[in-house]
Parts: sequence; C-alpha cells; structure tokens
Amino acid sequence: MKHSYDQLNTQELKTILDGLMTEYNGYIEKNLALDMSRGKPNGEQLDLAMGMLDTVSSTLGVTSSSGVDCRNYGNLEGVPEVRTMLAAMLEVAEDEIMIGGNSSLNLMFDAVSRALTVGVYGSTRPWCKEKEIKFVCPSPGYDRHFAICEYFGITMIPVEMTSEGPDMDQVAALVNNDPAVKGMWCVPKYSNPTGVTYSLDVLNKMAALTPAANDFRIFYDNAYAIHGINDTDDKLEDLFKMLKDQGKEDMIFIFGSTSKISFAGAGISAMGASRNNIALTQKQLGIQTIGYDKIGQLMHARFFKDLGGLRSHMDKHGAIMEPKFVMVQKILAEELEGLEIATWTKPNGGYFICLDTLDGCAKKTVALCSKAGVKLTPAGATYPYGIDPRDKNIRIAPSYPSVAELSVATKLLTLATKITAIEYYLSK
Amino acid sequence: MKHSYDQLNTQELKTILDGLMTEYNGYIEKNLALDMSRGKPNGEQLDLAMGMLDTVSSTLGVTSSSGVDCRNYGNLEGVPEVRTMLAAMLEVAEDEIMIGGNSSLNLMFDAVSRALTVGVYGSTRPWCKEKEIKFVCPSPGYDRHFAICEYFGITMIPVEMTSEGPDMDQVAALVNNDPAVKGMWCVPKYSNPTGVTYSLDVLNKMAALTPAANDFRIFYDNAYAIHGINDTDDKLEDLFKMLKDQGKEDMIFIFGSTSKISFAGAGISAMGASRNNIALTQKQLGIQTIGYDKIGQLMHARFFKDLGGLRSHMDKHGAIMEPKFVMVQKILAEELEGLEIATWTKPNGGYFICLDTLDGCAKKTVALCSKAGVKLTPAGATYPYGIDPRDKNIRIAPSYPSVAELSVATKLLTLATKITAIEYYLSK
Repeated sequence: MKHSYDQLNTQELKTILDGLMTEYNGYIEKNLALDMSRGKPNGEQLDLAMGMLDTVSSTLGVTSSSGVDCRNYGNLEGVPEVRTMLAAMLEVAEDEIMIGGNSSLNLMFDAVSRALTVGVYGSTRPWCKEKEIKFVCPSPGYDRHFAICEYFGITMIPVEMTSEGPDMDQVAALVNNDPAVKGMWCVPKYSNPTGVTYSLDVLNKMAALTPAANDFRIFYDNAYAIHGINDTDDKLEDLFKMLKDQGKEDMIFIFGSTSKISFAGAGISAMGASRNNIALTQKQLGIQTIGYDKIGQLMHARFFKDLGGLRSHMDKHGAIMEPKFVMVQKILAEELEGLEIATWTKPNGGYFICLDTLDGCAKKTVALCSKAGVKLTPAGATYPYGIDPRDKNIRIAPSYPSVAELSVATKLLTLATKITAIEYYLSK
Repeated sequence: MKHSYDQLNTQELKTILDGLMTEYNGYIEKNLALDMSRGKPNGEQLDLAMGMLDTVSSTLGVTSSSGVDCRNYGNLEGVPEVRTMLAAMLEVAEDEIMIGGNSSLNLMFDAVSRALTVGVYGSTRPWCKEKEIKFVCPSPGYDRHFAICEYFGITMIPVEMTSEGPDMDQVAALVNNDPAVKGMWCVPKYSNPTGVTYSLDVLNKMAALTPAANDFRIFYDNAYAIHGINDTDDKLEDLFKMLKDQGKEDMIFIFGSTSKISFAGAGISAMGASRNNIALTQKQLGIQTIGYDKIGQLMHARFFKDLGGLRSHMDKHGAIMEPKFVMVQKILAEELEGLEIATWTKPNGGYFICLDTLDGCAKKTVALCSKAGVKLTPAGATYPYGIDPRDKNIRIAPSYPSVAELSVATKLLTLATKITAIEYYLSK
C-alpha cells in the first residue's frame, strides 16, 4: 500500500527522494534518445498504406472513375470520388466539402488568413480592419492552433477544458457578449491533448451560442474522427446538424485529413462547411491556386474506396496504437496511483494522453526527462502563448516510439514526476 | 500583293467585308467548340511524364536517397534531391531554395499574403499597416498575378512591356521614388503573354534599382525557364547574380515549378531567394504547415534525376509545341501580313503568342471568335483590372488544341481581326 506524498514527513520524503535520484542517475547513464514530443505515426503505421502507392502507374493511369484527368489543371473543389469519401468521414453532404492539399493545418491557416484579409461569408469587412480580434481557446489545446493565432496577432482567450469538452459557460459568456470574439478552436473528438470527446451537452450549448459577432466561426478540427484505438470508440454527436436545425450552419468550418490514416506528410485534407461558406471559399481560393494535387487524391480514392475502407484501415492502426496506450496507462497507474501527485486522462482514441502534475511541477518534470534523453512536448506548449497558468500539464504522445521504448520513457516520466513532487513538498 | 486596309476606299472595304462575312457565317455553321484561352498542356504532353508514376510503389518504397521517409511529417524545406534539381533550374544555390506544393501560383499568393500580414525580411511592419501598397505590373502580363493584387487590394500600376521587357525608365521612376511601391511582377523568360525574354539591358536596369521602400520585392515568376520550343532557346541572364554583386540579393523572390514539365496539376513548385529571405520564409511557413507533400517531390527526383533530365524532357515538349506555334505563325502571316491591321509576337518558347489588333478592336475580335465557337482569353484580361487601355491585346494559347484545331481556330481569329478592322475603318 503506497502512501500519498502529502501524508509523509520531511525525513520520509528525503529517504524516498534519495532512492529516486539513484534510479534517475541510472537513466542518465543509459544515454537514452527517445521522442514522445509529437503526434507522429511510426513506420509500422505508415507501412499499412504502402499499397496506396500501387494504385497509380503508367498502365493504371490517373483518370478518375468520374472522368477527371488528374494530371491537368482544374477541379479546385477536388476529385468527386474523394469528395464523396471524405464528406462521409466529416459527416457533411457532398456539396458541403472541398478537398485541399496534404495538410489540414494549412487549410486552417489559410481559412484564418482569408478571414483576416478579406473576410468570411457574412463579414461586413475583413477581420484585419477590426481593432482587435479574439479567439476562444479551450486549454490545454493544440499548440499549432495557438501558433496560428499568435502569428496573426489574434488575442487568445483560454477557456478551461473539462472532461466533457470546453467549459461552455465561459465560452458563451465570451462569444455571446464580445463582438471582437470571431473564432474558437475545437478538437471535438479525442481532443489534442486531453483525449476528451465533446459531450452532447457541450455540443448542445455550442449550437445554442448566439455570437455577438455575426461572422463568428467555430474552427472545428475533427482530426481524429475515426481514430479510435479500442472497441469502445467514443461517439461524437453531429454538431453541424444541430447548427443546421437552428439555421446557424454558416457558423462552423469543419476540418479533417487522412494524415493519420494514410501518410502523415502525404495525406489529403478537407474542409466541410455550409454551401454559403464553401461557395465563397472556392471563389477566394480560386485566386490562390488553380487546384490542389489530384493524383494524391486519386490514390486515396482508389486505395480506401469509401468510409468503410477508411474505417477498416483505422482498425489496423488501432491494433498498433492500443498496446502503446495500454503500456503508458499501466505504468502511470503502477507508479503514480495513490501518491496524489498526478492525474492523467484515459482516452479511447486519438494520439495523446495528458498527465497533470502538481501545480508548478510540469516544466521541471519535462526538463528532468529531457536531461535523461526523453523528449516531451515542452511544458506550456498546450496553452495559448505557451503559458500554462498552473504549470501542470504534460502531453504524452505514445505513437512514435516502440512499446519497449515507451515503457522506458514512461517509467522515466513517472520517476521525474515523483522527484519533482517531492522537491515541491520539501520546498514548502 | 495585298493592300493594307488603310489604303482602300469605302467601297473596296465593303466588298472585302461582304466576302469575309460570308466566310464567317460558314464558321458559324460549323458549330466549333475550341479553346485557346488558357496555357494548359494537352494530353500528349502529359503522357510524356507517365513514367513518373512508376517511380514509387510498395516495393520501390518512398525513402529518398538522402534518407528522408517521404511518408511522414517534416522536411518543410523539401526533399534534398529535389532541392538540388530545382535549384539548378532556378539558378540559385542549394541553400537558396525551398520546395512548395503543386502550385507556384500558390507560393506567390502566400508570399504576398505573408508580406501583408507579417512583412518580409527587412520590413519595419506588415505591409497591410501601410495606407496603400502598390505593385508595378508590366503589361500585358499574367492575369493571375494581377488577380492576386486585386484580391488583396494592392494598387496596380501598369508599365509598358517592350520587345526587351518592361520599360525600365517607367519602372525606375516608380520604384525609386514611391515608398508605397512594394512589389513588381515579372515573367522574365518567354513572358506571359508576349513571349518576350528580358534583355541584358533590362536586367541591368533592374539590378540598378534603388527602391524607395527598403522592403521592396521583385516577384520573379520564371515559369518558363527551360521551356524553349525550338533550337533558338532564348538566354536569360542571371539577375539574381547581378543583384548579389550589388549586395541587393534580398530584393528578389524567384518562383518556378514543374507544372509545365511533368503534370500541370501535380507538379512541384519552388521558391528561390537569398538566405535571409529563405530563413524568414521557412520560419513563417512553419506556422502554416508541417511540410508539403514529399512523395510527389520524390517522384520528380527519381524520374527526372537532374537538370539535364528536365532539359531533355523539355525537348520532347518542344517537339509537340513547335508545330503548333509554327502553325499559328504561318496563318497569322498568310492572312494578316501586309494589311497593317495587326502585329504579333514570335516567341522561341513559353505558352503564348500575342496578337495586337488596331486600337479598340480586341474585345470585338474576341467576341466574334466566341460567337463562332472559339474561346480565347477575354480581351483585357492581360492588363491590371482587366482594362487594356488601347483594347488591342489578344493572348493566343496554342498548347491545348491539336494542330488541326489550331489551324481552324487561328484562321477564324484572323478572319475576325479583319472584319473588326474593316468595321473600324468604315466607322471612321
């Protein structure tokens, strides 16, 4: 039976710390070089889609079944077969989608950029003409979303992530009252980094928003729509439909991609939105490009065929990912349960697990890991401006290392968590 | 011996017009549907690169010879082999290039967008913070360049294109005196649409510019760098080197792509620039995307290998393009020479021929062709805001139709030119 650290006296803590430091120095001597910093698929996952490369050749040609010569200019909206397949994944109609290049981050960046320089459907003027633009940022969240805001000088307002999604009372108070609030970032399923899937209640409250800005947009990054890792895949209810039922369908931009389905660097991105939004976006985009690469699109259509094909492919990813998540959970439980120095999430999918340390301990914990050769996402990175106000959130990305490497890295992480916690108590 | 129309009296002109109208009505009855409106490769050209599709497969893999796993995230700067190959094409060093997605238009749009929202190397503030931004636009020029300016609200100042390139006295007067002039569009080789290659004198004068804005940029769209169609390929001198010699290498962004080498919709784009420019651009771009598609890059490296491979591939394009250009030139000469109602360019490469009618006759000529089923680029499109001040420039794009179709379409164009010219004289 473990004792929680806050029940121990100074001498007991010091004795434990001595043991932990000996163990830690053992890790230092191992000269580890492990990376748990980014949600990057490993080679085994990428191998699953190698057959995609065999779907085009000089003999198979690259004319789509819908008759598009994928070699030439045109079809800014995407190859019809791919539109159909990804519309099903994003749960939008076939005329509510456009296909982008290899990066949904790029699609999101461009959507924000267009809003700033020319405006969105319903804007009376470009966002950049306003004195200040604010985005609601459920936190912890995805660092690259926050980086886009920072790049463009958009003021980020953190809102707490609960176990059901963003704190919607906070969100509503901001969105419904401040016309400078033009956007909100969401990763609604297996959220980056907490792994939370937004509850029906949260989605209902999102659909009930009455934004002060009439050109407010939810940037809905559904990156992990079909990325369950075990048999209890979370169900995300259909926010787009709820919005439609209230005549608010222009309020959302939905993003997705196959980056974590086929190839991380050579997937296909897509944006789903109302017909008004899609029509204006297409018109604006037509100035930026004549069309995205259609050969990659065709490869996806030929290899995966439809949503069923995507889903059964993701089962294979799940089989690779599940033991990794299980290993991390097992070690976190074995090493930290009962000590009352950390909590962590237990997601059914996605790419991340969040470890919350005692207040003020995340940066030190990550630094200890780094010193021993295990790279984690910088503490704070999951918050706007890189500032975690309580310095407690650590993002664990289990996908890239092997199960054996993960075991070592997670063990070290728990060790560092314990060391930092004891040092915290001793300093009090 | 033909008489020039301006030497004929009214009765003579009317008699000729009657004959021409009979001929024109014959075309109407043919129900033609031909398109000479865009610089789009035809299927025969695209077929030349089908072997590129066979360079990747599940057995060949997609790891570059430099060791990059082209399936995963990363390598924003591009696959090393492709950087080497396209650096040679753009005549920049290997650390003076970054590889983009499938569209150099998109790279250019993004470069302008970044300048507006955050600035370029040397900017004291984002361009959008200035009261007005102006671009020098050699005209006629590329309609999509002008569309980017119009989209962003950048004021376009047309400057005359001579047979050697832009009128550099006009350019210098603008660039050297007005700090609002932040940019200039150039297509330096086989210019769109005139086919002119900038002379050494023009380039020397460009290198001698002393811009009033210290963050002025030449947007140098070298789209047709290796796109000669016959044995007398024009030589474009090295402006980047001239600028370097004067310590002005930050003043230029060079763009190029393989869109008209491999596949128009699935080529590879690149941006060449000084190390200062590349470093800042990479940093800015890192917010927009984790990296461009590297599998397409790898396919290009494996298929073309190096600049020599690109060049010998372009010889095959030339063999397809030359008869088309020859056909257009032949008909223009046969039908229009001596009438003193039109002039036209005789480029050694690129995708376009320019026909200049009498003043005020371009729109009517294009409309007559359209009515008879031959689509041309809208008259005026080659000028800023779509306004050709003398309404005389018509862009001919011979690549897409077959030689036989071109013969019919060009014949109709000369017929329409003659009809419009006679109507012009009769109305005087």
